[in-house]
Amino acid sequence: MGLIVQKYGGTSVANAERIKAVAERVKRWRDEGHRVVVVVSAMSGETDRLVGLAKQIQERPLPRELDVLLSTGEQVTIALLSMALDAMGCAARSYTGGQVHILTDSVHNKARIHDIDGARVGADLEAGRVVVVAGFQGVDAEGNITTLGRGGSDTSAVAIAAALKADECQIYTDVDGVYTTDPRVEPNARKLDRITFEEMLEMASLGSKVLQIRSVEFAGKYRVPLRVLSSFEEGEGTLITFEEDIVEDAKISGIAFSRDEAKLTVLGVPDQPGVAYRILGPIADANIEVDMIIQNIAAQEATTDFTFTVHRNDFPRALEILDRTAKELGARQVLGDSRIVKISLVGVGMRSHAGIASLMFSTLAKEGINIRMISTSEIKISVVVDEKYLELGVRSLHDAFGLGGQASS
Amino acid sequence: MGLIVQKYGGTSVANAERIKAVAERVKRWRDEGHRVVVVVSAMSGETDRLVGLAKQIQERPLPRELDVLLSTGEQVTIALLSMALDAMGCAARSYTGGQVHILTDSVHNKARIHDIDGARVGADLEAGRVVVVAGFQGVDAEGNITTLGRGGSDTSAVAIAAALKADECQIYTDVDGVYTTDPRVEPNARKLDRITFEEMLEMASLGSKVLQIRSVEFAGKYRVPLRVLSSFEEGEGTLITFEEDIVEDAKISGIAFSRDEAKLTVLGVPDQPGVAYRILGPIADANIEVDMIIQNIAAQEATTDFTFTVHRNDFPRALEILDRTAKELGARQVLGDSRIVKISLVGVGMRSHAGIASLMFSTLAKEGINIRMISTSEIKISVVVDEKYLELGVRSLHDAFGLGGQASS
Repeated sequence: MGLIVQKYGGTSVANAERIKAVAERVKRWRDEGHRVVVVVSAMSGETDRLVGLAKQIQERPLPRELDVLLSTGEQVTIALLSMALDAMGCAARSYTGGQVHILTDSVHNKARIHDIDGARVGADLEAGRVVVVAGFQGVDAEGNITTLGRGGSDTSAVAIAAALKADECQIYTDVDGVYTTDPRVEPNARKLDRITFEEMLEMASLGSKVLQIRSVEFAGKYRVPLRVLSSFEEGEGTLITFEEDIVEDAKISGIAFSRDEAKLTVLGVPDQPGVAYRILGPIADANIEVDMIIQNIAAQEATTDFTFTVHRNDFPRALEILDRTAKELGARQVLGDSRIVKISLVGVGMRSHAGIASLMFSTLAKEGINIRMISTSEIKISVVVDEKYLELGVRSLHDAFGLGGQASS
Repeated sequence: MGLIVQKYGGTSVANAERIKAVAERVKRWRDEGHRVVVVVSAMSGETDRLVGLAKQIQERPLPRELDVLLSTGEQVTIALLSMALDAMGCAARSYTGGQVHILTDSVHNKARIHDIDGARVGADLEAGRVVVVAGFQGVDAEGNITTLGRGGSDTSAVAIAAALKADECQIYTDVDGVYTTDPRVEPNARKLDRITFEEMLEMASLGSKVLQIRSVEFAGKYRVPLRVLSSFEEGEGTLITFEEDIVEDAKISGIAFSRDEAKLTVLGVPDQPGVAYRILGPIADANIEVDMIIQNIAAQEATTDFTFTVHRNDFPRALEILDRTAKELGARQVLGDSRIVKISLVGVGMRSHAGIASLMFSTLAKEGINIRMISTSEIKISVVVDEKYLELGVRSLHDAFGLGGQASS
């Protein structure tokens, strides 16, 4: 019997039937003796409908007013879910972000939460009511409505869980947990019972889109146990927790990958202090985010080769900028490749287990997959390979590291 | 140059094009040097859509949550109108009822306004911004969202005008003013330039649905000059004002009528103290509103005849109740007629002009229209006649009292 914060996304509350199904699930937890706070998103499609309305009025909608507009989406859901709970005899009360004082900064459309006043929610919970809170929204210090940006409902839920010192924050989605890799690529992928925050952050930032990355950071910072579950099926989902709670001895937890990569290389740059800055400065100025960076001594003396990756959408612009920079620096040649992907092994076990990298490289070599770039962190190894090898690479690594469903059962 | 509160209803803001048209009109007033506060309703159809959603969830939606739900309708409009103003270079800022502290009682779905804090609005107006406020909604002392009930946006506008001591409150509708009678019945009906609050109250309560009756009461009480205008056409509309401002010497201002009437009569009730209460008590207990009441000494000695009217929807239930009461009282007979209508002459001029009633009765008599009931107040005379005489009655009276368009031009 504890205090549980549950978050349901747009597809989970897409229509009256699904809202009733959510209400039944919430009531079950309440009937088991838990105090329950529910955070909901707008019904799926609603945010797009509202943005469409705004665009009929103004090409680039005024940010303050866009927040006033979009925040109605979640407000509709909280009212309907509270009605559904009431209809099945479960007392409930809804609150907008402003009503429970989800205080944010004033950056409209992508505000960050500063503080939450849990007092009002606490009083309702004491009185035995389920509390239904609008996700994705808050108010700034002047009382203006703000939104956290798309996907911000996860962050709302975690922030509320942190403020209330909840025993668990449950994120209900359309998948039943976090998998060792994407089951669409490797049908043998296995659902993880547990994963650490650090691993989840690496998985999320590497392209596993189960959770908003900001919400994972937030949960890690405030030590809120986070669980990913399915709105549509029963099951324990995946618990995202702290390293000390992990008992399994797995070397790696999962394989993440990202298809949206592009690689740029300058060859034969005269090697002098500040060259990295002179190459990447103009890229950053153009608001292009750089992911992997590698610098090597070139075969020719006194020059260096410099390679980095960007999002595939930014490739043409980055190449244009790099061509200019290369001329200024007197570099020999610029190369670009937008048909590459990144595959990463993630796992806290890596720290204490030698041989992970060599097994990875030998596995890929056995399949004839040429590695174009390598980058490592404490709990992950990423390789860049040709796009055509993505599926083969993920599957062979999944198998080599024993991540499959059979291995776990 | 003054402070103007303008209110636009649902049809005036039904889509993006109309919202832009409203923005243009608002901007014109602002550009003429006025400070402008705009109060808006939900886009037409939106409230029905939301109620429909609620009913899919709960047969009788929880009143508190229904208010949370419905208040999103106006919130969408304030955001869109503010964007439209901004897009044409007119600085604007939107506020929900809660944000400008439209404080109401806690009677969800039909709350009454207690107080408004004009400070925030005042600061924006000083800064040259148009202020856009959501009509129809407020918050109670605990911060719960309330709504004023359908049509409450008019009341919001008047209340804001009163709080800000506005020079005029302009209600934009789909008609261009208040007419001497309904132009669909009498094509010769004439738009009034001015009408008094008392007359407007009588007209409104007698079935002229131009303005919410509560908003007229409110405006009269706080002495807010009220003007009804068209959103779609240019024109001065009709000013609702105080008696002393009326210069015209018209005996009557208009003819109101109501089709939704039904009449019930008990004949031969033993005449004793408390008989009216014993007849009408059970009707009131059934939540049926009674309009006209007439009691006469009957032809037979020591008995009385008692007649009253109710809304036509309540007729079957009222008849049932009256049958029971009549038996208990030992009355001779119960009669009912649901095919009657009420026609009323309204005008403050009536007070000082004799002969209004006799001209009314002789006009109807000339047309062969039998009067079934008569009731009078200081500024109105109502008659009940058979349904089939409605159009003939209205037209002949309109003509007899010289209300037509030709007479005024």
